[in-house]
Amino acid sequence: MPQTIQPAVAGATGYAGFELARLLLRHPRMKKPLLFTREGDEKGPARLDDVYPHISGNGASPMEPLRWDTLRQKGIDVLFLATPHEISRKWVPQVLDQGIRVVDLSGAWRLLTPEYRAVYKFNDADPQLADSLTKRAVYGIPELHRDKLQDAALVANAGCYATSVILGLAPLVRAGLLDLDHGVISDSKSGVSGAGKEPTQKTHFVEAANNLSAYAVFSHRHTGEILEQLGLAPEQLVFTPHLLPIPRGILSTIYARLKSPMKAEEVEAVLRKFYAGSPCVRIFSAGKLPQIQYSLYTNYCDIGFTLAPDGRRIVIVSCLDNLMKGAAGQAVQNMNLIFGWNEEEGLR
Amino acid sequence: MPQTIQPAVAGATGYAGFELARLLLRHPRMKKPLLFTREGDEKGPARLDDVYPHISGNGASPMEPLRWDTLRQKGIDVLFLATPHEISRKWVPQVLDQGIRVVDLSGAWRLLTPEYRAVYKFNDADPQLADSLTKRAVYGIPELHRDKLQDAALVANAGCYATSVILGLAPLVRAGLLDLDHGVISDSKSGVSGAGKEPTQKTHFVEAANNLSAYAVFSHRHTGEILEQLGLAPEQLVFTPHLLPIPRGILSTIYARLKSPMKAEEVEAVLRKFYAGSPCVRIFSAGKLPQIQYSLYTNYCDIGFTLAPDGRRIVIVSCLDNLMKGAAGQAVQNMNLIFGWNEEEGLR
Amino acid sequence: MPQTIQPAVAGATGYAGFELARLLLRHPRMKKPLLFTREGDEKGPARLDDVYPHISGNGASPMEPLRWDTLRQKGIDVLFLATPHEISRKWVPQVLDQGIRVVDLSGAWRLLTPEYRAVYKFNDADPQLADSLTKRAVYGIPELHRDKLQDAALVANAGCYATSVILGLAPLVRAGLLDLDHGVISDSKSGVSGAGKEPTQKTHFVEAANNLSAYAVFSHRHTGEILEQLGLAPEQLVFTPHLLPIPRGILSTIYARLKSPMKAEEVEAVLRKFYAGSPCVRIFSAGKLPQIQYSLYTNYCDIGFTLAPDGRRIVIVSCLDNLMKGAAGQAVQNMNLIFGWNEEEGLR
Amino acid sequence: MPQTIQPAVAGATGYAGFELARLLLRHPRMKKPLLFTREGDEKGPARLDDVYPHISGNGASPMEPLRWDTLRQKGIDVLFLATPHEISRKWVPQVLDQGIRVVDLSGAWRLLTPEYRAVYKFNDADPQLADSLTKRAVYGIPELHRDKLQDAALVANAGCYATSVILGLAPLVRAGLLDLDHGVISDSKSGVSGAGKEPTQKTHFVEAANNLSAYAVFSHRHTGEILEQLGLAPEQLVFTPHLLPIPRGILSTIYARLKSPMKAEEVEAVLRKFYAGSPCVRIFSAGKLPQIQYSLYTNYCDIGFTLAPDGRRIVIVSCLDNLMKGAAGQAVQNMNLIFGWNEEEGLR
Repeated sequence: MPQTIQPAVAGATGYAGFELARLLLRHPRMKKPLLFTREGDEKGPARLDDVYPHISGNGASPMEPLRWDTLRQKGIDVLFLATPHEISRKWVPQVLDQGIRVVDLSGAWRLLTPEYRAVYKFNDADPQLADSLTKRAVYGIPELHRDKLQDAALVANAGCYATSVILGLAPLVRAGLLDLDHGVISDSKSGVSGAGKEPTQKTHFVEAANNLSAYAVFSHRHTGEILEQLGLAPEQLVFTPHLLPIPRGILSTIYARLKSPMKAEEVEAVLRKFYAGSPCVRIFSAGKLPQIQYSLYTNYCDIGFTLAPDGRRIVIVSCLDNLMKGAAGQAVQNMNLIFGWNEEEGLR
Repeated sequence: MPQTIQPAVAGATGYAGFELARLLLRHPRMKKPLLFTREGDEKGPARLDDVYPHISGNGASPMEPLRWDTLRQKGIDVLFLATPHEISRKWVPQVLDQGIRVVDLSGAWRLLTPEYRAVYKFNDADPQLADSLTKRAVYGIPELHRDKLQDAALVANAGCYATSVILGLAPLVRAGLLDLDHGVISDSKSGVSGAGKEPTQKTHFVEAANNLSAYAVFSHRHTGEILEQLGLAPEQLVFTPHLLPIPRGILSTIYARLKSPMKAEEVEAVLRKFYAGSPCVRIFSAGKLPQIQYSLYTNYCDIGFTLAPDGRRIVIVSCLDNLMKGAAGQAVQNMNLIFGWNEEEGLR
Repeated sequence: MPQTIQPAVAGATGYAGFELARLLLRHPRMKKPLLFTREGDEKGPARLDDVYPHISGNGASPMEPLRWDTLRQKGIDVLFLATPHEISRKWVPQVLDQGIRVVDLSGAWRLLTPEYRAVYKFNDADPQLADSLTKRAVYGIPELHRDKLQDAALVANAGCYATSVILGLAPLVRAGLLDLDHGVISDSKSGVSGAGKEPTQKTHFVEAANNLSAYAVFSHRHTGEILEQLGLAPEQLVFTPHLLPIPRGILSTIYARLKSPMKAEEVEAVLRKFYAGSPCVRIFSAGKLPQIQYSLYTNYCDIGFTLAPDGRRIVIVSCLDNLMKGAAGQAVQNMNLIFGWNEEEGLR
Repeated sequence: MPQTIQPAVAGATGYAGFELARLLLRHPRMKKPLLFTREGDEKGPARLDDVYPHISGNGASPMEPLRWDTLRQKGIDVLFLATPHEISRKWVPQVLDQGIRVVDLSGAWRLLTPEYRAVYKFNDADPQLADSLTKRAVYGIPELHRDKLQDAALVANAGCYATSVILGLAPLVRAGLLDLDHGVISDSKSGVSGAGKEPTQKTHFVEAANNLSAYAVFSHRHTGEILEQLGLAPEQLVFTPHLLPIPRGILSTIYARLKSPMKAEEVEAVLRKFYAGSPCVRIFSAGKLPQIQYSLYTNYCDIGFTLAPDGRRIVIVSCLDNLMKGAAGQAVQNMNLIFGWNEEEGLR
């Protein structure tokens, strides 16, 4: 009989929150998750299966308004926050004080560099406390921070775009093989669920269907995560997000230059070695490229590449499901590591 | 040099309104259309090409707030209303008083029967005037009311679903060939633009894509139009709308029973005769069925059918573009008839 | 330690075959499934993960050419056939002779009535044997034939459309509540995977996207299954399939007339009672309707309905995933029953 | 009464060929176009409206098998070839000999550099003649070769991807403002119609929907056109095509570096000046980016850009409809220039 713990999800009605609730409902080490509506949603629906009939048939999924001060009394071991970053920034200190682990899916605790953090316009009541928590938070990409995640109190689950770009570049950057001064470009494309559940003109079916658009060029919030995690300077990266006419999935086409010419097999070997102990990354053989469909509804990040005849220009393609490896799946993977379990538990 | 007139469009930023503006911009008998924002949209964008960069490159398309009382002074000959029905219901009397023709794309003036009209919950300041105007209004399907449309002051442009069902059934109903007491069923499917431009949960890309749903079963507002125009009793019709994961287009699959067995050629002949003088209806040869794609971006209503081996059960398929023959295209067709022009002018 | 058996799949490269392989790979009572290419595909790809990189990362999935005569020697307990019906019709006798259970996903063994079977144009070497096998075959909808499925040697897995229509109508038909002479209509819509993996003009993205079309009106092969299973006469049913611009999912809108007026609660009670012991059918509360999205990637058939004010005309909406409850999922459900296991095993 | 000429289209059943036929049917200076099936298609459908019911209602559109030797006798003034490049390569000499102008939509005559041409594997009967014709052919982008197009005998209509990349880069390249040695990258995305009408696994709805994939990295046939027209060396360009899950439209996201820092207004001024006399290119104001939807069903190429804070890194976004400005529309534009007409004639 495996150890089981009590999880809770705040913001379960959003796309990432719902995906998370679904994963936790069938995770073998989870008690039935407690589900909280967002603050201010007290008059919202009372059951998650009313919002998402998809999961009816598994018994009722009651939701309750979130009371931050009484979480411990409910026996919660880990709280997942799928709430706006302002909420996380405000309440996480109190939750940690109650001895509850937090996996935060927002951008609240991801960035150490004040300049990168500025885009979020945090308005902290206690800036010093916020700062020290930021330093304590572990950036939630297991493939890079597996050790620190063990027994972590606060995990800042990585951004969806950021995960796809960082995982695609990390092996070559860490190995010092790229000419970073030449610059790195990620042309990234995401399905519409990445824009959230709130209906807007941009997410209206008629606007998004049969269309493709670039947005937030040189200004997307995930840029800072990529720079920090890869140790790049701002002028070394161009990151261009695009809105794809599909519900979910991200594909990043990444352009870089190797310091010296390499053979495809050598590059492939570097990638395979880097991800040797990482079951959630799949490396494609040289010349074969991943497609968005392959990783949909899985927690895999798929990585492939093509090398130019000159052996220096490289195009890396990185794919993942933005609600899984880009959000809820990675959150579960991080939780598994906090508690010392197999990182794929509940994710296959 | 053909006669030209001055058109205006209120509500040009909605999907039907924009389609209309686009049609009027290239109609050979139109002066450059005046464009009005909706009442209350005074702070909205000042140019239609800001909302729809699609039409930039044709010169600026300035919009101005609508002032109902000064339309005549602007030299307007015909006003198209792509506004909510409450607006039409309130202001049309004043517009007509100024001697301006009105083609109203809302449901405000379509229904004579008070019971059917009840769903709109009109709150008329002068019910008697509203009633008399309703009687004066011509229901805007040229194929049924071509004569009355000539020189009409007020046209109640038909609903998109209603047009598709009415045109599919009219020939056999008018010829008295259907066993109406057995009942007629229209299983209709519409693209998302039919739900309007306002972003809602229902029109969110992630909800509408990869999906199909029935809605408003036994309660859709277009039901009354179909009943009135075909002379059916409420219990003789079942009309079921569905939301299709495509931007535009309607397909109605219509089920009926013939009083006596007929041959396919006979049925086809009835259809062809009925629409002999109607260039905007295309009849498909027996056994060939229209598809939504065929009529997209055209003002055609396409009609085909299949007869059961018993010669009595018939399935009629009727397709149109909900923004063209189902709204803006038909509005132009109606206007052409008001002014005595070829009904296809500006529509090919 | 639960009992485990050795499954095999012939035709694993098709859409239903692949879905099946994926289900079997994670079914707790299955040894690693043996995968066979189709007869004549000897030169095809050697691994299923080459065709579907989706499943790479779970170890190799080798495929081998199918040798019908040596299946027993490979220790196979159950063979799933996702092959064309001619293949099933030809080889199943030999497979059964070897004492191997067969779940056949084709139409080869579904129909008892020679007239309905005629559309398949079977060319049996031994018509008498074929006939007797047809009678022995159990029609594979567990909700109707749960008892007969126990220990069955040959299961004729139901058609995707047929499952959706039969499950939607069975409760009211079996209870004798419908006026069948008035006729029953199913307006059914299916995603493109229902048309198979072979590329054709019809399944070309540019033809299917932004489109909807009706086809095979009065002539679809699944009609016979619906008639037989519900005990209807041919003239009592109209079944109209449509091709939806989505990859997977079926929604059937079913029109019928009750013999006497009923209340919605009464109808709902009939449905709930009929499916009381059936965990793979979800009944929606009166007035709430299922949508295709709710059952995608699940083995549920979702059923809801709306009753007209007259209490007699009823519209039933039935949804399922054509590759799951409409094919592979139902095949696994049937297998679970053959071997006496929980019918949802491996399907949640 | 404007001058009219007799056009003909070979290969009218393909996507580009059909779009072309549709444009010619309503071009004011065209006699009814003659339509030819492809060589070998003698047993194909006899009417274009049988293949594309979209255009029925405009009278029959008979097709006939193409006889290359008797075109002059049919009074043809201009022949559009929407046929495979081998066909064009083989027959164009004979057509020109008859004094007929040719606008060829294939890749047969676009490339001067033998190395770039090698990917087509031409097998010319008379290499010298082929060579001299290649030199005579005018590359069909009016914005670059307006003068040479006047009275041209043979136009090599530009590739769809190539048009989008070349038009996006030409102003800055021609002005000498880019640091070409740093390299230029075009991350281009195209709708599925760009892959042609032939059904393949890649164009199957189920494979293309909900998906995105990169292909032909460092090896796409349009690369040579871009290099030649912009005067780049092979190592100065990375061109990565992607398959978008939409029927039509191309968006190229182009990455380049300016030699010296510039202001956005300065860059915008360069673009506007370059395209001052080009009605089919729309420049977006600095910071505003085109989307695929804006140019669908038009002959516009839309161009916008964003400049990094450093004033050197620039992201250019270029959009067009691959069947219009990327194929048929541009072919008509080229023809207009051959005959000395307004280049937008028949295209608005």
